[in-house]
Amino acid sequence: MTKVVHAIQDDYPDDFAWCYGCGRLNEAGNHFRTGWQGEETVTYYEPSLDHIAIPGFVYGGLIASLVDCHGTGSAALALHRKNGFEPGSGEASPRFVTASLNVNYLKRTPHGPTLKAVGKVEEIHPKKWKVTVEVFADDVLCATGEVVGVVAPTSFTNK
Amino acid sequence: MTKVVHAIQDDYPDDFAWCYGCGRLNEAGNHFRTGWQGEETVTYYEPSLDHIAIPGFVYGGLIASLVDCHGTGSAALALHRKNGFEPGSGEASPRFVTASLNVNYLKRTPHGPTLKAVGKVEEIHPKKWKVTVEVFADDVLCATGEVVGVVAPTSFTNK
Repeated sequence: MTKVVHAIQDDYPDDFAWCYGCGRLNEAGNHFRTGWQGEETVTYYEPSLDHIAIPGFVYGGLIASLVDCHGTGSAALALHRKNGFEPGSGEASPRFVTASLNVNYLKRTPHGPTLKAVGKVEEIHPKKWKVTVEVFADDVLCATGEVVGVVAPTSFTNK
Repeated sequence: MTKVVHAIQDDYPDDFAWCYGCGRLNEAGNHFRTGWQGEETVTYYEPSLDHIAIPGFVYGGLIASLVDCHGTGSAALALHRKNGFEPGSGEASPRFVTASLNVNYLKRTPHGPTLKAVGKVEEIHPKKWKVTVEVFADDVLCATGEVVGVVAPTSFTNK
């Protein structure tokens, strides 16, 4: 299975659904979609033909973007579940913003296979969660990462 | 001044000039361009209208991409200078790949101003360099980062 049926991004409030990486309302964006797979979280993504670092290998900045949005999405999934909800239940989801992002590039990531980001979520404060991320291409671990996300204040949508 | 006249990316060998972030040959990409400003390195970038996290603010994944390519470009500038060359001198530049990328998002980055990434480069091994990065919007420091880059083996262009 390389599809997420119920993604947390489907339940982000409209004001928070414009992210270039994962916002369903951002037409030009990547539309990363993050859901549960057992106790872990997953995001699948097929890089476009342009998303290369050198011919044949995926652009590291795209992997950083994937880790970033997978991290905030995973934190939102976990807090939503803590609040008693699952994606697709009809409840608006919490929305996290990134405080810090770390990515370690273990090996070149081949361009072609669907990428799979897998996350483990840990609450370090009710409004601050940590997500450790592994990025695979054809089951080969190519990058690891960590995202610390904080719950977005509602004031964030006021310009 | 918000333009880099002599960018290191102009001197990347053709095989290494396809990066979505900074490759001059990647038509769809961001075309980040990195040059010296005194002893520091700079990259300027105007995010597109789509590059938002929420309306009015820049997408964090774009900032991560900027830090990434600015880091590898800065390391290449420094090694090129150590080898006796400056961008625009006609010599092919060294090319770095990212080993690790860290970004700390200090505050929301307003969408509109030209972003400015500033780097300081430190050699930690002849083939491994560290770049500390600050990202400004209208002279306000919005993010900091660190990139560890390693010299790309020429075998990297063999698929």
